Amino acid sequence: MQKSLVVLFLSVLYQSVSAQNLTQYVKPIIGTQRMGHTYPGATVPFGMVQLSPDTDTIPYAIHGSYNPKVYEYCAGYQYDDKTIVGFSHTHFNGTGHSDLGDFLIMPTTGTLRLNPGTADNPESGFRTTFSHENEIAEAGYYKVLLDDYAITAELTATERVGMHRYTFPETKEAHIIFDLMHGIYNYPDKNVWTFVRIENDTLITGYRQTNGWARTRTLYFAMSFSKPFKNYGAKDFEEQKTYRGFWRKFDQEDNFPDLAGRQLRIYFDFDMTEGEQLAIKFALSPVSAAGALKNMEQEIPHWDFERVKREARDQWEKELSRITVTCMKQEDYESFYTAIYHAFITPTLYMDVDGKYKGLDQNIHQAEEFTNYTTFSLWDTYRALHPFLNLIQTGRNNDMIKSMLAHYNQSVHHILPIWSHHANENWCMIGYHAVPVIADAIGKGEAQFDVGKALEACISSAKYRRYDGLNYYMDLGYVPEDKSGSSVSKTLEYAYDDWCIAQIAKKLDKKDIYNEFIQRSENYVNVFDPTIGFMRPKLSNGTWKKDFDPLDTHGQGFIEGNAWNYSLYVPHQPEKMIEMMGGKERFVGRLDSLFTMHLPDKYFENTEDITRDGIIGNYVHGNEPSHHIPFLFNYCENPHKTQEIIRMVMQKMYKSAPDGLGGNDDCGQMSAWYIFNSLGFYPFAPASDSYQIGSPLVKSATLHLENGNIFEIEVKNQSEENIYVKEVWLNEKKLTDWELKHKDIMQGGKLVFVMTNIHN
Amino acid sequence: MQKSLVVLFLSVLYQSVSAQNLTQYVKPIIGTQRMGHTYPGATVPFGMVQLSPDTDTIPYAIHGSYNPKVYEYCAGYQYDDKTIVGFSHTHFNGTGHSDLGDFLIMPTTGTLRLNPGTADNPESGFRTTFSHENEIAEAGYYKVLLDDYAITAELTATERVGMHRYTFPETKEAHIIFDLMHGIYNYPDKNVWTFVRIENDTLITGYRQTNGWARTRTLYFAMSFSKPFKNYGAKDFEEQKTYRGFWRKFDQEDNFPDLAGRQLRIYFDFDMTEGEQLAIKFALSPVSAAGALKNMEQEIPHWDFERVKREARDQWEKELSRITVTCMKQEDYESFYTAIYHAFITPTLYMDVDGKYKGLDQNIHQAEEFTNYTTFSLWDTYRALHPFLNLIQTGRNNDMIKSMLAHYNQSVHHILPIWSHHANENWCMIGYHAVPVIADAIGKGEAQFDVGKALEACISSAKYRRYDGLNYYMDLGYVPEDKSGSSVSKTLEYAYDDWCIAQIAKKLDKKDIYNEFIQRSENYVNVFDPTIGFMRPKLSNGTWKKDFDPLDTHGQGFIEGNAWNYSLYVPHQPEKMIEMMGGKERFVGRLDSLFTMHLPDKYFENTEDITRDGIIGNYVHGNEPSHHIPFLFNYCENPHKTQEIIRMVMQKMYKSAPDGLGGNDDCGQMSAWYIFNSLGFYPFAPASDSYQIGSPLVKSATLHLENGNIFEIEVKNQSEENIYVKEVWLNEKKLTDWELKHKDIMQGGKLVFVMTNIHN
Repeated sequence: MQKSLVVLFLSVLYQSVSAQNLTQYVKPIIGTQRMGHTYPGATVPFGMVQLSPDTDTIPYAIHGSYNPKVYEYCAGYQYDDKTIVGFSHTHFNGTGHSDLGDFLIMPTTGTLRLNPGTADNPESGFRTTFSHENEIAEAGYYKVLLDDYAITAELTATERVGMHRYTFPETKEAHIIFDLMHGIYNYPDKNVWTFVRIENDTLITGYRQTNGWARTRTLYFAMSFSKPFKNYGAKDFEEQKTYRGFWRKFDQEDNFPDLAGRQLRIYFDFDMTEGEQLAIKFALSPVSAAGALKNMEQEIPHWDFERVKREARDQWEKELSRITVTCMKQEDYESFYTAIYHAFITPTLYMDVDGKYKGLDQNIHQAEEFTNYTTFSLWDTYRALHPFLNLIQTGRNNDMIKSMLAHYNQSVHHILPIWSHHANENWCMIGYHAVPVIADAIGKGEAQFDVGKALEACISSAKYRRYDGLNYYMDLGYVPEDKSGSSVSKTLEYAYDDWCIAQIAKKLDKKDIYNEFIQRSENYVNVFDPTIGFMRPKLSNGTWKKDFDPLDTHGQGFIEGNAWNYSLYVPHQPEKMIEMMGGKERFVGRLDSLFTMHLPDKYFENTEDITRDGIIGNYVHGNEPSHHIPFLFNYCENPHKTQEIIRMVMQKMYKSAPDGLGGNDDCGQMSAWYIFNSLGFYPFAPASDSYQIGSPLVKSATLHLENGNIFEIEVKNQSEENIYVKEVWLNEKKLTDWELKHKDIMQGGKLVFVMTNIHN
Repeated sequence: MQKSLVVLFLSVLYQSVSAQNLTQYVKPIIGTQRMGHTYPGATVPFGMVQLSPDTDTIPYAIHGSYNPKVYEYCAGYQYDDKTIVGFSHTHFNGTGHSDLGDFLIMPTTGTLRLNPGTADNPESGFRTTFSHENEIAEAGYYKVLLDDYAITAELTATERVGMHRYTFPETKEAHIIFDLMHGIYNYPDKNVWTFVRIENDTLITGYRQTNGWARTRTLYFAMSFSKPFKNYGAKDFEEQKTYRGFWRKFDQEDNFPDLAGRQLRIYFDFDMTEGEQLAIKFALSPVSAAGALKNMEQEIPHWDFERVKREARDQWEKELSRITVTCMKQEDYESFYTAIYHAFITPTLYMDVDGKYKGLDQNIHQAEEFTNYTTFSLWDTYRALHPFLNLIQTGRNNDMIKSMLAHYNQSVHHILPIWSHHANENWCMIGYHAVPVIADAIGKGEAQFDVGKALEACISSAKYRRYDGLNYYMDLGYVPEDKSGSSVSKTLEYAYDDWCIAQIAKKLDKKDIYNEFIQRSENYVNVFDPTIGFMRPKLSNGTWKKDFDPLDTHGQGFIEGNAWNYSLYVPHQPEKMIEMMGGKERFVGRLDSLFTMHLPDKYFENTEDITRDGIIGNYVHGNEPSHHIPFLFNYCENPHKTQEIIRMVMQKMYKSAPDGLGGNDDCGQMSAWYIFNSLGFYPFAPASDSYQIGSPLVKSATLHLENGNIFEIEVKNQSEENIYVKEVWLNEKKLTDWELKHKDIMQGGKLVFVMTNIHN
């Protein structure tokens, strides 16, 4: 065979493998150790079910005080743990506050135990030890050996249904524990109510309502066993009830099909032969138990676990193949496709197969010509995740925006979501960052929703005086620290969001609105103290906060950040900001210091979202407010420094390992940052029509866009050392600046980077 | 004018008044004093809303122990109380256990108080003193002067909407208190969750879920003010929450529109001029807040209080006029039409205007070609209320049965309701007495439902082994007292219910089922101890319970009754029972003793449903199990004693006064007993095709049947003294026994009683 033919053959073979087996690179275990807060279990793209092992039951509070350890369990799983308590059906990907962990299932054998036991003494409860050697986590599939019971557990899922398969040893004492007390960020009064019906000897239905991060959250279920149980029972762990009524007629602990209360655990007994498999289908619904049952019947009308597993993988394969890449090394493939996997988990589907969903008003709504999504971690995801979805999942991103507009319609505050999940606003973090998501879709020409209505929703959100110091902001031009904490962060982010509104207004030719909001967008200047060169909290009397430490994360007017990082948050007017801070030369020195100085622990202790893992110098990559900072070098004629930093961050903060994320994935934001930068560009200011160019990590990439066009990226002279971008060519035309227009991507074409190891 | 013309004129005038103003005789205040447990507020026939004053807030338990005083407040109102705490929207009529009292509204002026205060010290809270002199209670309308605030309160209602009208003095400090903690049979953990939205300055929506007699009960509301409030606020009285999340950002006590929690009270402030009226429309829904709003918009699309009041009265007039009577005296009119009023309250509508309702499975269902009802106090109401409705509200009674069949379809136990309300089975009392209601409709030829399906539901209910000793009953032929308490009552009532099933089977020509259940229906013999002549608890080993006292109500194998009364409960085989008890002669002596002996207090102390008010000798009329007993004389050739007793009971146990009921009205059962007996006949054994004849109280009556036929009753020689029935003529044919066939009524015609003061 001639050499050229071999090359051709290998190339075809590779492409074929690449196109057909991208799921091989997905390592859901990435980020499960330390602070990534990802979960390793089974889910499909943007699915309602996230069926995953929980490794401990951590109370939110101990003796009434916050238990800091609970933070580690935002996703229910910590890689270093030695035990598993069971498999629950809902999990956040990478959040820094939490909820969910609904409907824990645990298979056991031998003596029935209805308490989870402790990690130190697992035999005291139903939990079991496990080993990562006996654990497989793939896209849409999870498997683990439960040591104490010699049960092999396997999990897979469709959009609305989790499927379990447990392979038992021979036993007359097989149990399925169904724990309705279990939850993530749990505390004794979190469970509001639980309602369960044992419909027959294979079908269970019901719901649970909780009062957690989501204040009024109800999730319905239908659970089906592949074979009938022989016996069942329940225990209500609520300590004391004033009144139990005439239900006391019944022994509700023994085979009683009609259960309700606040703290229920239920068990089902089976006889199992050696190697016999018990499968469980567990469907969720935001609407009703009847809805859950319908979801189950429609999505898994059979008992073929392998088929569900295969279809889950196929779904992932299809979604992952929206972008095909070649990389320098195996690990980069894994980091890249796992990043896409994590970016394609949230927001999650929140609608039954018949289009019904629960709204923010707790009424049941029918989705008219859109798919309803929930879990909007917008303070995080407006930065890169939604811009990424806008680019590569354009239809879904539009549906997500329609879901936000439905939220607005249902909001008694008449505002867009801040941080919302499961028909609840949880009010976490700051800003009104649904606005940049909407503005990004409009600004980049991808809006498929009612833009006029969206502008109305944005303005209404930006003028809700009751919200988080917004009244002061509107009256004074800044949020005063003595009136509303984290005042500088709020002022800066409101100003950026206001610029986004101005961009929408401009597009719709609404001059008055444009003028109003472009003026508001300059409010960042009001919190800049030129005498010290930092953004600084201002009091309501117009004076600066005294005793100000720009290194400290605690109580300095910022949220999850210090003035060194947060002062640079003016993504809409970087040039003006740089000028304000003394000009480009001085600013470069300042950035250099940021990336090289040492930030002692004391400055970020007890700030949960900031850990040493996520810090380079004083630059905090493990949390979001700094994600745009590396690109500020581009604005100071020092693009090579942007390129250096980008490549360094990709190397230091992302790896294909359980501790592979330098901070909470934050519903895919950390991953989306990595994806964009692997491709060589980044949405510095969402809602603008362009991206900033960094330094790509891939050797090549092909973007299969939803409009049918293909955008190719070729990176010439790519290597570990060639981190500098010498030239960039778009469709054979050399770019003269560090900006890439969105429309140039969407109309298809080719981007060529030429790399070098020497910067000019 | 000639005398005959005057008579004619007066007669026409009288008939006209009678036909057009029957509501004048309705005195909702009857039964509000002592143990009637009726409420005086506004409702329409079988309406979902029962808007009525609550005179105290009685905790169900004090320091964890049952508070016997709570029993007096089953309907929220006690005539002897001096204060009113407010007006709530749901009440039971005459129950002996309770729930509801949802959504209390109280108008106040002056200093805002958010606690109800105490009866002893009303100024300490928002409650007010009131006087019966300033109180009017009519069919569909209630009015009272709230002394402390000089506010005139008026209430009226449609089926699903309560309407309030408050006439204020001049004040800048008018408040509407909206108390979501308040409830009947209340205790600290009864409130499960409350969700409220202040939609705008006139509209409030939300729901409350409680865990009371109904274990999982959620009621939704929409409330609208006739003028905008100027200010509002809320207080969450829950003692301590582990976690409040990011809602702490907001001052939720001050004009915050988005409220949820377990213990909420809300207030709305208004400026009022002298004599200015504030109206409130308050709609309920079992389905959703959106459903409540739709109910409001459809039922009261205006602010005309007088119109709603007039339409409520018109509805009552229409329903009352199904039976027109002439009586001997004014008081009898009042007792009679108030009894009809009370008989036409329960079961209550439980369905939105669009036909949606919440089912027992907590799913939302669409009623297909029937109206869904709830509140089935079947142990009480199968005896006379449902037979009465079967006769005179045939269509509604069929819908009620369809509602029970829907309950059966939704029941995880696959059984008919026992005592159900608001999408819950509360399991109160014993028996499966939906069966006689169904069997009565079938037996009397009035069934408009699927009879085959109904039989299936009846059998399924009668074979639910888990229920209340039914397994033992099926295996042993009786309920053994050592296995299941109240065993004799259960055995007797199961036997009767089984006879009802046999009657249905006979009608459907299902011989096997007939044989099976006719055999079960004779199980009463198994608990008859011939050595003492009483029904007596038997143990599982077949021996009789020792230490048996047939006078005592406590722990003798009976529920709310003693052996003297309960032993006579074999309504389906009275002849055989009489034979078993020694024959007619001996039996008459026994009955005579029952009505004349003295029953000392100690035998019924602490049996809440039995009080001295409701006792004649040892015959307990104030509770249900004995309601058929007076007619047993008919079966012993002593009909005149039936007639004497009936007239005596009507005289002693019913009067037109606040204390006018000798016991709990029990959802209309006491009233239905009175109505039947006023007309001269009674359903001795529902499900049979006939009634027993007693002694009528009316002078004449006209029954306007739903089939268009008219049945007239004429009582000749009627007087206070002429209590004996000399002859009865049906369509000019003299009756030869004391039985009246249902079909003879339904085909129209005339029944003539000839009365006398001497019995033969």
